[in-house]
Parts: sequence; structure tokens; C-alpha cells
Amino acid sequence: MPDPTLLEFFDNPADSPYVIEHVNEEFTSVCPKTGHPDFGHVTLRYQPEAVCIELKSLKLYYQSFRNEGIFYEAVTNLMLEHLVQGLSPAWIQVITDWTGRGGIHSRVLASHGPVPEVYAGG
Amino acid sequence: MPDPTLLEFFDNPADSPYVIEHVNEEFTSVCPKTGHPDFGHVTLRYQPEAVCIELKSLKLYYQSFRNEGIFYEAVTNLMLEHLVQGLSPAWIQVITDWTGRGGIHSRVLASHGPVPEVYAGG
Amino acid sequence: MPDPTLLEFFDNPADSPYVIEHVNEEFTSVCPKTGHPDFGHVTLRYQPEAVCIELKSLKLYYQSFRNEGIFYEAVTNLMLEHLVQGLSPAWIQVITDWTGRGGIHSRVLASHGPVPEVYAGG
Amino acid sequence: MPDPTLLEFFDNPADSPYVIEHVNEEFTSVCPKTGHPDFGHVTLRYQPEAVCIELKSLKLYYQSFRNEGIFYEAVTNLMLEHLVQGLSPAWIQVITDWTGRGGIHSRVLASHGPVPEVYAGG
Amino acid sequence: MPDPTLLEFFDNPADSPYVIEHVNEEFTSVCPKTGHPDFGHVTLRYQPEAVCIELKSLKLYYQSFRNEGIFYEAVTNLMLEHLVQGLSPAWIQVITDWTGRGGIHSRVLASHGPVPEVYAGG
Amino acid sequence: MPDPTLLEFFDNPADSPYVIEHVNEEFTSVCPKTGHPDFGHVTLRYQPEAVCIELKSLKLYYQSFRNEGIFYEAVTNLMLEHLVQGLSPAWIQVITDWTGRGGIHSRVLASHGPVPEVYAGG
Amino acid sequence: MPDPTLLEFFDNPADSPYVIEHVNEEFTSVCPKTGHPDFGHVTLRYQPEAVCIELKSLKLYYQSFRNEGIFYEAVTNLMLEHLVQGLSPAWIQVITDWTGRGGIHSRVLASHGPVPEVYAGG
Amino acid sequence: MPDPTLLEFFDNPADSPYVIEHVNEEFTSVCPKTGHPDFGHVTLRYQPEAVCIELKSLKLYYQSFRNEGIFYEAVTNLMLEHLVQGLSPAWIQVITDWTGRGGIHSRVLASHGPVPEVYAGG
Amino acid sequence: MPDPTLLEFFDNPADSPYVIEHVNEEFTSVCPKTGHPDFGHVTLRYQPEAVCIELKSLKLYYQSFRNEGIFYEAVTNLMLEHLVQGLSPAWIQVITDWTGRGGIHSRVLASHGPVPEVYAGG
Amino acid sequence: MPDPTLLEFFDNPADSPYVIEHVNEEFTSVCPKTGHPDFGHVTLRYQPEAVCIELKSLKLYYQSFRNEGIFYEAVTNLMLEHLVQGLSPAWIQVITDWTGRGGIHSRVLASHGPVPEVYAGG
Repeated sequence: MPDPTLLEFFDNPADSPYVIEHVNEEFTSVCPKTGHPDFGHVTLRYQPEAVCIELKSLKLYYQSFRNEGIFYEAVTNLMLEHLVQGLSPAWIQVITDWTGRGGIHSRVLASHGPVPEVYAGG
Repeated sequence: MPDPTLLEFFDNPADSPYVIEHVNEEFTSVCPKTGHPDFGHVTLRYQPEAVCIELKSLKLYYQSFRNEGIFYEAVTNLMLEHLVQGLSPAWIQVITDWTGRGGIHSRVLASHGPVPEVYAGG
Repeated sequence: MPDPTLLEFFDNPADSPYVIEHVNEEFTSVCPKTGHPDFGHVTLRYQPEAVCIELKSLKLYYQSFRNEGIFYEAVTNLMLEHLVQGLSPAWIQVITDWTGRGGIHSRVLASHGPVPEVYAGG
Repeated sequence: MPDPTLLEFFDNPADSPYVIEHVNEEFTSVCPKTGHPDFGHVTLRYQPEAVCIELKSLKLYYQSFRNEGIFYEAVTNLMLEHLVQGLSPAWIQVITDWTGRGGIHSRVLASHGPVPEVYAGG
Repeated sequence: MPDPTLLEFFDNPADSPYVIEHVNEEFTSVCPKTGHPDFGHVTLRYQPEAVCIELKSLKLYYQSFRNEGIFYEAVTNLMLEHLVQGLSPAWIQVITDWTGRGGIHSRVLASHGPVPEVYAGG
Repeated sequence: MPDPTLLEFFDNPADSPYVIEHVNEEFTSVCPKTGHPDFGHVTLRYQPEAVCIELKSLKLYYQSFRNEGIFYEAVTNLMLEHLVQGLSPAWIQVITDWTGRGGIHSRVLASHGPVPEVYAGG
Repeated sequence: MPDPTLLEFFDNPADSPYVIEHVNEEFTSVCPKTGHPDFGHVTLRYQPEAVCIELKSLKLYYQSFRNEGIFYEAVTNLMLEHLVQGLSPAWIQVITDWTGRGGIHSRVLASHGPVPEVYAGG
Repeated sequence: MPDPTLLEFFDNPADSPYVIEHVNEEFTSVCPKTGHPDFGHVTLRYQPEAVCIELKSLKLYYQSFRNEGIFYEAVTNLMLEHLVQGLSPAWIQVITDWTGRGGIHSRVLASHGPVPEVYAGG
Repeated sequence: MPDPTLLEFFDNPADSPYVIEHVNEEFTSVCPKTGHPDFGHVTLRYQPEAVCIELKSLKLYYQSFRNEGIFYEAVTNLMLEHLVQGLSPAWIQVITDWTGRGGIHSRVLASHGPVPEVYAGG
Repeated sequence: MPDPTLLEFFDNPADSPYVIEHVNEEFTSVCPKTGHPDFGHVTLRYQPEAVCIELKSLKLYYQSFRNEGIFYEAVTNLMLEHLVQGLSPAWIQVITDWTGRGGIHSRVLASHGPVPEVYAGG
């Protein structure tokens, strides 16, 4: 079950604004309709304020979706909600890219705060 | 025959604006002039308002073009019309990329509503 | 319906043995179980004897599978049978490569006659 | 000889603005200085007004350059002139990409009308 | 739990020998040592005798490893054993390709029967 | 018109056997059936005996096919014949790879003399 | 130990503004948490004022991180600080791209001064 | 020795503004420090005014750097100076991309006049 | 210092012969001549007899070369020696691929026992 | 001028046979006919007997061709001769790959001694 309490944070080591990006190429959850697994990539991009996300805890958080039945759109928006709560970032993006089902592959892009124009398309 | 009644929708699970993209790499229709099949990719990108499009119904809708004789430009604009009616999205794009005929490959890009600048070129 | 009478042939213009290969990247038939379209590539490779296959007739032959419900294995073996009958080649291979279904993509390779070792794997 | 009378047009099937792109990967003309053939790609991109260009006629038009001695810069600007006259488009771009000569490959980009910023670089 | 009873078979539609290959790009199991998920590709290649493997049942069989703690070498040899039992093929190969752990990615290749030389390396 | 008198040769500078390969990525001739241009790559590979082919003369020889109406199979076998006559090589291969027509691309491979096994497939 | 005294500079040979970019594809430091080595690419991009950085000294500076236990975010911001002090550039960017750990690869992008919009995303 | 007198020009065949780009993938000069050769690509991009650069003369001009000991930054700025003098273009860019030395590869980008935003990053 | 006592082994879970391959893309040692770091990939391929190599211990073994001054040829042959001693495999290969130095990149391939022909070139 | 006295050798550190490969991606010489520079890659592959070639001396040897007017075939056979004399290897190959001239790119492959079948094609 998606579990935001797995997320851990550490103090931002810098005073000036900068950007952090983590790309998980091994995400999997379950389609709530068919029960078949979904596979995808999750890109997280943000400008930290007080804290940064600890990488190993992020991996465990992603793994907590492994046997959850949940749609593409809901995965993306739920992650955004959890990460905004934990990070309080200057801005943040969550982008999910899903491998094909029946010849169609999909992407969902959600964001929070003033994302710079250069990242507007993910 | 292209059949928009195949399209099904579900309630948008999020309150904030975000972007959904579906890329169909297995589209085929028929050239009305020569009777030969055309093959292409169809990219659908939109910002949902009240509803999202259900993925399997989208696949069936695309399949309803399989034996239809219809030009590249007409396919693209007809899909846009059907999807705008069903989705009433904040904005939407339909982009078709067609494999080569006689050494020439083609793309048609149609859109509706205030597409963000970053997506202007498809 | 797969129609081998569409195939046309022309006299082999050369006396010495050589190899001809045609790769069709736009093949489609229908899954007899689900009714959904299948998409794939068909590679035909042979050493002609008396005749060669005419390219446009080959294209029309491939198109005759468009609305046929037929499995991967059957498509491949049926094509091999039709082409052996029409060409009486020194040797011949038919290789079909199918795009993914549920994350699995497939290949079927059938041949007739003494295919050179270098082509044994397709 | 480059022959704009080969170009044919059909009525634009849509009321709203959209973009059409045709990429010819098999263009050849002749270098007027050396007499050797030049090879390149021609990209045509435009927003139609009253009419669209018919694809097969475009192919024949391109073929009319086959034995013409003409420089890269002149090919590009001449095509733009012919296409503006025939299409009267909202805007149009012609981009030619030429394979290398002596280790140098080249591109020429000409346009007419208010090309959207996203296409400014071709 | 890996469950070979999920595998279904259908009669081989051809009399002559030929080769079938299924590549699953979305395999996941669990590392028995760390509890972290492993991700990989599974390639199955065989020459059928009396029966062929049904594709959807193969997918479900692969999914039965999803929450199983099992090493790379054991996954590969166990699959080979299950498939040999069910298919009694002329020959068969199972190849697993695993994404990197700590900068090292791995492959395991197991086979049964007289695999043609051309496939010896997977 | 294909003109083998354009070919020039120079003395082989070495005593031991070795291999020379020239790949022309800019070959064009004309389809005798439709009158449309064909485009392709021509690979020439041989082990010289007394003489080697001069590169610029080879280029001019290839250009002599530019406006010739001739089928794929005939181009390949005719080149082989011309080159065998001029070079009297230990062995030689001519491989033509043609861009797609109607979604089908083709290759023709002809050879003369004891081509080493490693080059058997082109 | 990261040692900024290794950095050497030479006088900027030009009067007008321009951009210099150095991409190091062989950076390695050590994870302070696990003691395992980290591997990545470091991109440095700047507009010089009075001085440019000497390339060999930059290489030695990068090598001084080889056995240092330091996090991704800290590496990036520390390099930026050192380089700003030494170069006093019009603007500067440091981008680190790290190979995957547990299926997640990361990027950190830090900058100083008025970086042109075109480089905003790295 | 870099010799701008090698550059030749011809009259711009068009009245409207357009863009010309020449990419030389075979540039070499010598490192003044080590005496070892440097290898790189040179991209020249400009909007012509009265004249265009003649392609063969450009090639000879590039060759005049072959045995010159000169740094990356100096090559780029010197070329820009020579080309501005000869062309008096509306705007112009010179971009050099150098292959790696000790694991670091580099790029220098210099320009003159109002380069369009789309080309700002080279 | 290269330390073969770091290597750990586990019992081979299968009775029949099969092949295991581990590719390490993050190997680094030091050039004994210049003191600069070398970077490369190490491929290990073997057919196990009684035991297999444990993956994490292999990683630590590779890390023990990190600050060792040692030539390409010596690294490769030393690893082969260590692994043969620990594994007593049916056959084994060690292949090292080194990133470029002064424009030259290198590979060293050493093996022990009857490596199958298909792997002879690495 | 090609200078084999630049080549230096060191004692082979291993007793068993193995293979060494050096790929130089930055080779340049001069065409003796036109005076224009030629660019190419040189691959050297051999099984050492008593000695190995020292990498930096190999680089200097390659640089000694920089301003030499010499044909592709002669470069390759001359290098082979020099290297056989210096190395007395069990077997050796020299392969040169030349960038295109007039749309044709070339390869020359020369060898000495019993090259293993797997390397026969370079």
C-alpha cells in the first residue's frame, strides 16, 4: 500500500536555489481493472527548500506501490500530494511514463508550484 | 466506420491541472484514393477538466478507423472533433505521424484550446 | 482472406545463385481469440530458381490478411506454404516479428529447403 | 526542370488552423559546378488556408529537380516561392538537409509568413 | 508462487520444424537476500513438437513469480524445467537479462536439447 | 546508361590476400515499371588479385545508372558481371539495399568466387 | 580531498561574450553512507569574463574527489562554489548526472549568475 | 596557417532572410601545449546578407588549420572574426565540438549579431 | 589492492550446464605510468561447475582495484587467474573494455577452458 | 612520414594466449591524388607472443601518417607490415574504416597469421 511515512528527508546543503531530479526506471503497480501489473518510469524533479528527499527512502516508497491496484492518473497525483507534503519544495513535478498496453503507451505529468518554463513539458 | 460512441470516460481523480498523453503506435486506416492501407502513430495530449478518457475505449475507437477510406488531414481533424465533444478538455492536441509513401512521410497536428507553448510543436 | 492467387512472378534474370530479401514493416491481421488487430513485420528471404516474386503483387498478398483472424504461428506457416508453391525456390525463409501484447513480443521463423547456415537464426 | 505546374491542391477539410508536415527523404538534384548528383531531405511544413497540397503531386514536383543543375540555396528558395504561390498558406517553411561533400553537410531553411516560434529552428 | 499449472498449450499447426520466440520485457521477482524487487527480460525460444505454448497463459505464468524471493540462476533453471515438462519441445532456451544492481547487470542462459549453433549465445 | 568502361583500376599494392569494401549510400536508378526513381545503398566487397578498383571511377560508374530503368535484381547482377570482368578478383560480392516502396524494403545479394563464410550473409 | 587549489586559469582570448562547455564522463566519488563508489558525468558550462579554466587542471581537480565521501547534492554545490571563486564568470552552471543505484538515476543542476534561458534545463 | 584569404563568396540568390548551416565533421588542428592533434566538429550557421560562403573554399579554409598549434577557444573566436569580415552577415554563429581528452570533451560557442533565440544554445 | 579473498561463492542450483554473465559498467583502476585513473567495463562469462560467484562479493572484489596502479593487460589476466582459482568453472572469459585515451580505446579478452565458439570474440 | 621506429613494446605479462584490441578513432592522412585530408578509424587486433605494443607509442606512430600522401590500401598494408615486424604476434589484423568521399565510405582489412574465424570479418 502506498506509504508516505517511508519517505525520509535531509537538510538541504545549499543556500541558493538548484534542481534535483530522480528517475526511477523500475516502477510497477497493478491495474485495478484487470489485475495485471503495470510497468513504468517515474521522474521526480524539484527545487528544494529546507529539505531534500533521501534516495533510499524514495526507493522504498516507490516499492510500496508494488501490489496496489491503482490507475495511472491516480498514481501520479497521489505521489505529487505525498511529496509536496513531505518536501514543501519551491516547486515540484511528477511524471509517469507507462509501457504500452494494446499498442498504446501513456504519460501523466502533474506539478505543484512555479515550475520553470523549461521543464513545462516534463 | 469511425465511431465516437465507443469512447468512454471516467471522473478526473484530481483537482489541479495536469497533462495526460496517450501514444498509439498501431493505427491503420485506408487511403480513399488508392485503397491501400495507411499506417501511423496517433498522439493524444490533453489537460482534463471533469473527465478523463478510458484507455481501452480509446483503443476500440482507434480500431473503428481500420477499414475506413479517409485522408491524413481528415483523420486528424475528425478525431479532434470527437474528442473535444466527449472530453470538453481545458485544451487538447491530436498529432498523427504517417509512415512513408513514395519516400515521403507526413505529420498532421491539430489542437483545440490554449495549448501550452511547450507543446506547440507537438 | 489470405489469397495466394494474388502472387505474381517474373523470370529470374540471372543464371548464378543469389539471395533476395523483402521486409514488410506494415503487416496486420486479426487475433482470432480477441478480435483485436495484430501488427508485425514479415521478412521473406529466398534463393530464386526459375522465377522471382513481383513486389507489388507481394504487397497485395500481404494485404489479403488484413481482416483475417489467424494466429502468429499459422500466419507464418501458411505464407511459407503459399510461397513455396508459387516460387519453387532453392530455399526460402519466412520470419514474422510481432509487436508486444501485455509486455511480450514474439517471432516465428519457418523455412523450406537448405537455408545457408548464416541465415539460420533469421 | 523544376516544374511548379505539377503541383495539385485539394480543399482544406478543416475550419480551424492546424499544421501539415511532409518529409521527403529521397531528394536528388545535380551540382551545377561539378555535375555530380546532390542528395538530401526536404521538409515542408505549413498551416493551410483554403487548400492543401496533394501528396502524389508533391512527389512528382520533387522529381522534376532530378537532373537540374542548381545550388542548395537556390533549390530551397525556389521551392518556397513555388509553394507560396500555389498554397497561399498562413505560413510555410522549406528546409533542405544535404548529405556531406568533403566531410561537410549542410542545411538551408527558408520560410514565409508568421512561422510559430516553436518551428523557428526547423 | 511460480505456478506451472498456469501454462496452457495448443496443437502445433505445422508439420515441419520451425522456431518460436517470446520476449517478455516486464518480468519482476524479488531478491531473496535483500527483499528488493529484481527486474528483467525473459526470452523463451523453442522448436515445437506436438504443442505450442499459449501466449496469455505464458504471461500469467510469468506473473506468478512477482512476489517470489528467488535468485537469477534459480529463476532461469526453474522456468526451463517447467517449460520442458509442459512442451516436450525438440529443443528450448530460456534467457534472463537482469537490470543492473550496483553497476553490474547480468544474464543467465539455460537450454535443453539440441539448440542450433546459431542460437548458442542466446 | 550503365557504362562499365567508366571503371578504372590500379595495381594491387600488396602481395598477401586482404579485403576491400566500398559502401555507396547514394545510389539511384529508375523503376522500369512506374518510371519513379529508386534509391538504395550499394555495397561492394572483394579480395583483389592483380588490380584494385579506383574509387572515383567507381562513383562515376554508379552515376551511370541514374536515369536507367532497371529492376533491383537486374542492377545487382549486372554490376557483379561488370566488376568481375574488370577486376578478376579472388572473390567478390555486390549487395544492394533499397528503401521502402509501399512499406516493403528489399535487399539483393549476389556474389562470385569463394566468398569467406563470415561474409555469406552480406 | 576536493582541492580547488588545483584549478589553473588562463586569460580569456576574446573580447566578446561566448560560451565554454566541458563534459567529464569519468567522474567518481564515494557515497558517505555506504562507502560504495558513485559514478557520474559532470557538465561545466560558463561565459568567461577575465579568465578561462585550463583543461588539464580541471581534470586534476575532478580527480581530487576520487576517494571523498560526499553526497550528490554536496558535490554539485561545492564545485559551483569553487569554480565561481576561481573564474568570476558572467554566469556558470554545474550539472551532475549519476548512474543508477537501485534502479534510480539522478541529476543535480546548480548555477550562478544570469544563465541564458536556453540553458535553464541543463 | 589559418588563412582567411582562402574564403570565397557568391551572391545571395534570395531577397528574403533565411538561414544556412554547414557542419564540418572532419576538423583537426594541433594542441599548442602538447603538440598532439585535436579533432572536432565545426558548425557554422548564419543569415546571409549580400553574399553566401562558397562551400569548397570553406573546406580549404578549415584545412588551413591542420598543422596550426591553437587552443579551442582561440580557434572558435578566430573563425568567427574571419567569417564576420568576409560575410558581413545579419548574424552568425561558430560552434566547435571537440572529442575527448582524458575523459573530458568540450564545446565552444561564439556568435555575432542578433542570433535568433531558437539558436541561442547552438 | 586487488583482493581475491573478497570473492564468495554459492552452490550451483542446477545440474545441467548453463551460462552466467555479469557486466560491470563501473570499473576503475589507476594507470601505473601516469597515475591517472582508467575507466572501463568488465564482462565476466562462465559455465559453472560446483559453485557460482555471489554478485555482491564480485562487486567488492572489483572495487579492490580502485586505487591500484595496473595495466589493462595485467588487470584482465589477474582477474582471470583469481576467478579460475575460486570458481573452477567448466570454462570462463574475462573481457575488459577501456574508455579512450588520446583517441584510442582498447579491449583485452582472456579466457580459460573450452569456451564455446559463439563466445570466441567476446 | 610513417615511422615504425616510434613503436615501443613491453613484455607480455601473461603465459596463456589472449587478445588485445586498440581502436583509434582519430586517424588522418592525406590523399596522394587530391591533396585533401582523409579521416578514418584504425582497429588493431592481435594475439601477443613475447611482447605487447605500448599504447602511447602506438598513438605517436599513427600521428606520423598525418601529412603523408598515401592511399587507403597502402596505409593498411604498410601498418600491417610494420606491426608484424615489431610484434611477431601469433596473429594480427589491421582494419581501416574511412569516412565518406562523394557518398562512398570504405574499409580495408588485412591480416597475418591464423586469425580466429570469429574475427575473420573484422
